[in-house]
Amino acid sequence: MKIIVADTYDEMSRLATHKLLATMLKSGRVNMAITAGNTPKGVYQLLVDEVAGRDYYDNVHFYNFDEVPVNGEPEGVTMTNLRRLFFTPANVSESQIERLTPENYQTWDEKLTADGGLDLMLMGLGADGHFLGNVPGATKFGNQTYRVEADATPTLREVLVDEVGGDESKAPDFYVTMGPQSVMTQVRDAVMIVNGKGKAAMVKQAFFGPVTEDVPSSILQLHPNFTLILDADAASELNL
Amino acid sequence: MKIIVADTYDEMSRLATHKLLATMLKSGRVNMAITAGNTPKGVYQLLVDEVAGRDYYDNVHFYNFDEVPVNGEPEGVTMTNLRRLFFTPANVSESQIERLTPENYQTWDEKLTADGGLDLMLMGLGADGHFLGNVPGATKFGNQTYRVEADATPTLREVLVDEVGGDESKAPDFYVTMGPQSVMTQVRDAVMIVNGKGKAAMVKQAFFGPVTEDVPSSILQLHPNFTLILDADAASELNL
Amino acid sequence: MKIIVADTYDEMSRLATHKLLATMLKSGRVNMAITAGNTPKGVYQLLVDEVAGRDYYDNVHFYNFDEVPVNGEPEGVTMTNLRRLFFTPANVSESQIERLTPENYQTWDEKLTADGGLDLMLMGLGADGHFLGNVPGATKFGNQTYRVEADATPTLREVLVDEVGGDESKAPDFYVTMGPQSVMTQVRDAVMIVNGKGKAAMVKQAFFGPVTEDVPSSILQLHPNFTLILDADAASELNL
Amino acid sequence: MKIIVADTYDEMSRLATHKLLATMLKSGRVNMAITAGNTPKGVYQLLVDEVAGRDYYDNVHFYNFDEVPVNGEPEGVTMTNLRRLFFTPANVSESQIERLTPENYQTWDEKLTADGGLDLMLMGLGADGHFLGNVPGATKFGNQTYRVEADATPTLREVLVDEVGGDESKAPDFYVTMGPQSVMTQVRDAVMIVNGKGKAAMVKQAFFGPVTEDVPSSILQLHPNFTLILDADAASELNL
Repeated sequence: MKIIVADTYDEMSRLATHKLLATMLKSGRVNMAITAGNTPKGVYQLLVDEVAGRDYYDNVHFYNFDEVPVNGEPEGVTMTNLRRLFFTPANVSESQIERLTPENYQTWDEKLTADGGLDLMLMGLGADGHFLGNVPGATKFGNQTYRVEADATPTLREVLVDEVGGDESKAPDFYVTMGPQSVMTQVRDAVMIVNGKGKAAMVKQAFFGPVTEDVPSSILQLHPNFTLILDADAASELNL
Repeated sequence: MKIIVADTYDEMSRLATHKLLATMLKSGRVNMAITAGNTPKGVYQLLVDEVAGRDYYDNVHFYNFDEVPVNGEPEGVTMTNLRRLFFTPANVSESQIERLTPENYQTWDEKLTADGGLDLMLMGLGADGHFLGNVPGATKFGNQTYRVEADATPTLREVLVDEVGGDESKAPDFYVTMGPQSVMTQVRDAVMIVNGKGKAAMVKQAFFGPVTEDVPSSILQLHPNFTLILDADAASELNL
Repeated sequence: MKIIVADTYDEMSRLATHKLLATMLKSGRVNMAITAGNTPKGVYQLLVDEVAGRDYYDNVHFYNFDEVPVNGEPEGVTMTNLRRLFFTPANVSESQIERLTPENYQTWDEKLTADGGLDLMLMGLGADGHFLGNVPGATKFGNQTYRVEADATPTLREVLVDEVGGDESKAPDFYVTMGPQSVMTQVRDAVMIVNGKGKAAMVKQAFFGPVTEDVPSSILQLHPNFTLILDADAASELNL
Repeated sequence: MKIIVADTYDEMSRLATHKLLATMLKSGRVNMAITAGNTPKGVYQLLVDEVAGRDYYDNVHFYNFDEVPVNGEPEGVTMTNLRRLFFTPANVSESQIERLTPENYQTWDEKLTADGGLDLMLMGLGADGHFLGNVPGATKFGNQTYRVEADATPTLREVLVDEVGGDESKAPDFYVTMGPQSVMTQVRDAVMIVNGKGKAAMVKQAFFGPVTEDVPSSILQLHPNFTLILDADAASELNL
């Protein structure tokens, strides 16, 4: 685990962007899993400017690592957000987008293996300790890509309603996510960005506390190549 | 995880030996952690013949990964066994032996990092699910190299007396071992050999059951490069 | 460059076999290019015994790296020899054999890239300094996989007649081979075996003399991961 | 070889900077060889802003890869320039600077091996095809780090006078440089930046022409991980 404490959100975003772009510049096929959510907005602003119109990133394949289906919609929340934040403004070709969906999650790990694994994954951290769709109460470290039912924890259904914008009729009964085993065994370079005081306590607990399924992201302590990029606020409870 | 089912103990030993020798033949410094115990006796018989008198293995450094001190003795159980089984008959130079001891365990992970990590670790499996000195009831996944007190579990003191040959006066109050975090983050090629019907149930539980501290070796399901070499008996409860 | 001097041909063969088998035991797809000729006969005797009937090598793909077509025959000299020495007695499945042919050589490098490169290549050394089909007088270091015409050097036509067993009517007008650039950029682990006094002078010249197209194998001095395994005779002119 | 054509010098500099910073963000010791000269000035402007005052780059060791001694001065041309362009404004600690000098060049390759090799090297291209101090007429592909005498080529003495600012009394009789073999076998990620119409013909010749000691940088065609970053002018003679 390499911990990097940036002064600001902008610095954090810049550092993550360097890692992403350097991976994307490698020769041959590059496989990269990326996250939606609020934390990476700064990263995508930088990425869009660098990627749009450049053909030297044509070798990069982008993967989502979880998906929340939306009733009545052809694509789920994650892919919709990735398109809006990055794929569409950066003009990423459809042939470079690899979609995890409710239909293919059971063969996703096999597909990743056949594709040669993931060169890099960019992740965020939930204030409750979740990473990807691995939430406390519904996570087993041994899970590969799996399906989580809305009633797996007391609060999950509410979260899913939130995810689809508050409209209960659109909220799904489940979502799919890569599990801890998938991340640990498929990802060569695991990068997490975290900002804000609201997550400072969880940063301390997840990466300096016990490794436990109650704090799913704590498993990343055992990843051989895990880079944690924090802004000063997110690092404010650490004694470094 | 790659699972290899050999027909016999001899075949299992030969396969592990190929992996060890190929690693040892690499250029530059090679760091290899090896196990004592009964399982690898066949491996050491093969290794001794290949290594004794050959100077092209001079670049290899051998590490023990746990140690049980013996009251009144200069070296512990693990190192004594490794010398008897391998270092002495293979004529391995003292400068190639890197000793984990009760005195240096707190800086062992730092040392491994400074040495460039471990290219390979050869491990065995306990019928109770332990690997290295990580036993059920006294193992935390987040542990780096640590000290385990004899009263950490109800049965541990008895085990330690056994380890020193049954003489209670020689039995220590503790031992030291690399922890799960050390193995997961420092070892590039994790190799485990298991033979015999007596371990068949544990093979199934540890590598096809939940990842839990109650079965310490189950964490190896998450290692990105874990090879499990079984004889037919050890594999007899698997549905492959 | 790591140079290993074995006492005997048998030891040389055993060491190469360890390297091959350890690579073949890796998880996921393994890509391995192997050589025909006299030098590796000892290797294949050992390999056949280890591989025949074992399903845990099913993930290995075997590539030939050159081919001499034979007039009137469906397969060339290299593939015919590899089948006889190894594929047939080891019962290697046809789906694991990747054939370089006069028909596909122009897309061979692309194919290798798409396949993920070669994990290991086992090579021999010619007494004239050639490696693969890269002979003095017809080799450019910049060559990828290419076609060599029989009149490219004064002696080549004679060599080709020899290769097909002395029958001029069967001798081709050309052969195909991976070039130096292919080997340097596609092969992660380059292994060469050489035995016999007859090659001792060339071992010295190729690996301790200048890097020059006149001695094609001298380029291997620049490979980042080149292992040269010699018997004592082949090493007899070196001052190690 | 991965060729990246940037529109502008600034874009070229930014892309190289991403690669450098991402390498520098790795955990554990990072070894990076960097170039002086005019081409990388844009890179260092970006780097200085990112590196100055940040302690998370403390694990990076910086190496020069050639040195022109200056009569009467304690340090040579390369190190003086690297200090001015980067080390001093970025406040790089002296303990992170690894100096190749006329005194230690004979053991430099051994040192690099002991240090674990170079994670990345940033290079420029000479209009005459030189890279590092490997100039046409004085370069052997087999060279490790070596000493080049001022009379090795007809024009070299003049170049050396230029290098020391035109003062003949300060011009040395030799310089030292890592050779092609050192670069090929020690550098995991070889990055070259080239800008300007004045080098366009050489870009074509070096990377699309024959691999020959007359064009020393042509050897990089054989590097397994070579990234060539050009601006549009430098790429203007290529048919991509």
